[in-house]
Amino acid sequence: MLSAAQRDAYLDACRAAAVGHITELIGTRDRGHPAYRAVLDYPLREAKGLRPAIAIAVCRALGGRLAEIVPTASAFELLHNAFLVHDDVEDGSELRRHAPTLAVQLGVPLAVHTGDTMLSLALEPLLDNMRLLDLGRALRLLGLITRVMRKTAEGQALELTWIAEQRWDITADQYVEMVTHKTAWYTFAGPIAAGAIVAEAPPALIDELSRFAIDLGVAFQVRDDILNLRAEPSATGKESWGDLWEGKRTLILALFFARAAPEDVAFARALLARRRPGAGADPAAAQLDRALDRLGDRLAPDVRSAVHAAFCDIGRAALKSGEDVDRLRRMIEPEIEQAAHIAAEFASRASERWASIRPTMAPSIHRDLIESILEFTITREH
Amino acid sequence: MLSAAQRDAYLDACRAAAVGHITELIGTRDRGHPAYRAVLDYPLREAKGLRPAIAIAVCRALGGRLAEIVPTASAFELLHNAFLVHDDVEDGSELRRHAPTLAVQLGVPLAVHTGDTMLSLALEPLLDNMRLLDLGRALRLLGLITRVMRKTAEGQALELTWIAEQRWDITADQYVEMVTHKTAWYTFAGPIAAGAIVAEAPPALIDELSRFAIDLGVAFQVRDDILNLRAEPSATGKESWGDLWEGKRTLILALFFARAAPEDVAFARALLARRRPGAGADPAAAQLDRALDRLGDRLAPDVRSAVHAAFCDIGRAALKSGEDVDRLRRMIEPEIEQAAHIAAEFASRASERWASIRPTMAPSIHRDLIESILEFTITREH
Repeated sequence: MLSAAQRDAYLDACRAAAVGHITELIGTRDRGHPAYRAVLDYPLREAKGLRPAIAIAVCRALGGRLAEIVPTASAFELLHNAFLVHDDVEDGSELRRHAPTLAVQLGVPLAVHTGDTMLSLALEPLLDNMRLLDLGRALRLLGLITRVMRKTAEGQALELTWIAEQRWDITADQYVEMVTHKTAWYTFAGPIAAGAIVAEAPPALIDELSRFAIDLGVAFQVRDDILNLRAEPSATGKESWGDLWEGKRTLILALFFARAAPEDVAFARALLARRRPGAGADPAAAQLDRALDRLGDRLAPDVRSAVHAAFCDIGRAALKSGEDVDRLRRMIEPEIEQAAHIAAEFASRASERWASIRPTMAPSIHRDLIESILEFTITREH
Repeated sequence: MLSAAQRDAYLDACRAAAVGHITELIGTRDRGHPAYRAVLDYPLREAKGLRPAIAIAVCRALGGRLAEIVPTASAFELLHNAFLVHDDVEDGSELRRHAPTLAVQLGVPLAVHTGDTMLSLALEPLLDNMRLLDLGRALRLLGLITRVMRKTAEGQALELTWIAEQRWDITADQYVEMVTHKTAWYTFAGPIAAGAIVAEAPPALIDELSRFAIDLGVAFQVRDDILNLRAEPSATGKESWGDLWEGKRTLILALFFARAAPEDVAFARALLARRRPGAGADPAAAQLDRALDRLGDRLAPDVRSAVHAAFCDIGRAALKSGEDVDRLRRMIEPEIEQAAHIAAEFASRASERWASIRPTMAPSIHRDLIESILEFTITREH
C-alpha cells in the first residue's frame, strides 16, 4: 500500500504532466490570446487530479508507456474542467476549489465560452494520438472519448431536467443511473479504459476494468455527497452544505423524500425551491433606497423605514435561510447513514472486482496507486 | 445561374439530409431521453442551412459522392446550432428564428447543456468517417474540424472580451479578424474545405477555396450586421435592430466610434452599456407592490403611488429605451453606408477568387449553387 503522502505525490506528478501538456496545446503564440486566458484557471487551482492519475496508473500498471498516455490523460483533465465550468454556471455555484467560480469572476458569457474553448482544445490530443500511436489504438481512444462525452451529457441532462421540473420523487436506482452517466463514466470508466487501451490490454480485461470503474465511481459520488453534508467549507473548497443551498439532487435527498412524512416533504420542497441568497447586496433594495431618497420630505421617516423593512422582508421570504437549511440538514441525518451503507455496498463490489483484476498486473507503484484510490474512496473524510 | 427558387430547393434538400442524419445519430432508443429533447429544436426551425449545402455543393462540384459528405455536413450543422444556442445565452437574446431562444424556453442551465450535448454529438460523424472513408481523408476532416472549432473559439473570445471590458475602440481590422475567426471559418472555410477534402481536391485548390471562403465569410457577416439595422423583425426572425439592443460589436459601430464627436461617443457608450428591458414584468416592482400592500393604512394613497412611481423611474433609467436606440440608429446611418462599401470590397475579392476556381469544376447544379451563394451574399436584402 502507498502512504497518503506517496499517493498525493503520484497524483501531483500526473496533474503536473497533464497541466504541462494543456499549456503546450495552447502554445506560446496564443498564451496571451483572450480565448486562453481562463482555460488554465480551474486546472491550476488546488485539486486532486484524479483523472490523469487514474489513466496513467492503469496504463503503466499494464505495461504501457507514460508518453503514450499523457495526451489522452490531458484530454480527460480538460473535459473534466470544462464540465466543472459549465456545471458551475448551471448550478449557480459561487465557490469552486476555494475561489470564486469562473461565472462569478468573469460573468456567465465568458464562463460558458471558456468551457467551450476547453472542449475544443480537448480534441487536439485525440488528433495527435493518430501520429503518436498506431491507428488502431488512436481510433479506439477517439471512440471512447466520444462515448464518454455522450454518456456524461445524458447524465447531466437527467439531473438538470429533474431540477427544471422540480422533481424530487427520484428512486435510488434513478439516482444511480444519473451518477453512473454523469460522473462514473468520465471520472473513472473513461480514464481507466483509456489507460488499458494504450497498454494494449485484452478486451475482456478492459470490460472488467470498466465494471470496476463504474462501481467505484458510484461509490465515490455518493461519498462526495455525504461529505458535502458533513465537511466544513475549508476542507472541500466549497460552501458548507452547498448541495442543500443549491438544491442538488443527491441519493440522500432521494431517500429522504421517499421516507419523510407529508409535512416534512412539504417543508423540504418549499425550502429547496427557494433561491439562495446572492453574494452581493440586493440591487432592488438599493433601487428602492434611491427612489425613497428622491421623495425627500414627502415621506415621513417612520413611513420610509416601514416601506424599506416591508420590502426587504418580502425579498428575504423568497430566499433560503440558514435556519431552514440547518433544519433540513438535521432531518436527513438518517438518510446520510443509509447512503453511507449504499456507498459501502458499491465500494465493496468494486473491491471484489479489483481482487480479480489485481493478479493480472505485476506489482508496481502504479498498481498500488489504483488500490490506494479504491481505499481512499472507501475511507476519505474530505 | 440558379433561380432563387432552385437555390432554396437545393438548400432545403441539404438541410433535410443533415437533419435526417442528426436524427439518426440520436438514435431511436434515445429519442425520448431528456438529453436529446432540445437538440433538434434549433436545427428544425426555419433556416437557410447554408453550411451543409456549401459542404455538399463543393464536394459534388468537384466530383465527390453525396453519401461521403453528408455525415461531415451534419457535423457542421450541429456545431453551428450548438454555437447559436450558446451565443444566445451569452448575448441574452430573446428571439432566434421567429421563436423564443432555448435559454428563454428552458432556462440558462438546460440551454448551456443542450449546446454541450450538440457539441458532443458532432464528434460521432467524424468517428463514423473512419469507416466510411479511407483513413487519410477521415483524419484530414478530423484535423479540419478541430482547427475550425479552435478558430471559432478564438473569434468568440475576442468579441466577449470586448463586451466584458466595455471596449468600443475597435479598429476595422480588429473587427475583420474577429469575424474571420468567429464566423467565416465555421460557416464557409470549414464546410468548403470539408467538401474539397472528401472530393480529393489537390491541396493548392483547397487553399484557394479557403481564401475564397474567408473573403466570402467576412462579406456575409458584415452584410448580416447591415441587414440587422435595416430589416423588420418579420424578415430576419430576430428583433428589430437587435444588435443595438444587445450592444453587439459590429463594423458599423466600430466605424462610428472612430468618427463620432466626443458627445455622441459619450451618448452611445452610455446607451449601449445599459441593460435591455426584459420580456417579463419586473419582479422587483411586484415585490414592492406586495410590500406596500402589507403596510395598508400606514401609507396614504398619494404617498404610495409616489413611492411606486419613483421606484419604477429609477428602474427604467437603468434600461435602454426605444427612443435612445432610435436616436443611435439615426446617428450611424453614414457608417451603414461605409460598411456596405467594405462588404462589397470583400465580396468583390471573393468574386475574383471564384473566377479562378470556377474553371476547375465541370458545369453542374452544384457549381451553380456555390455561385448563387456568392451572388446571394452580395445582393441579399434579408
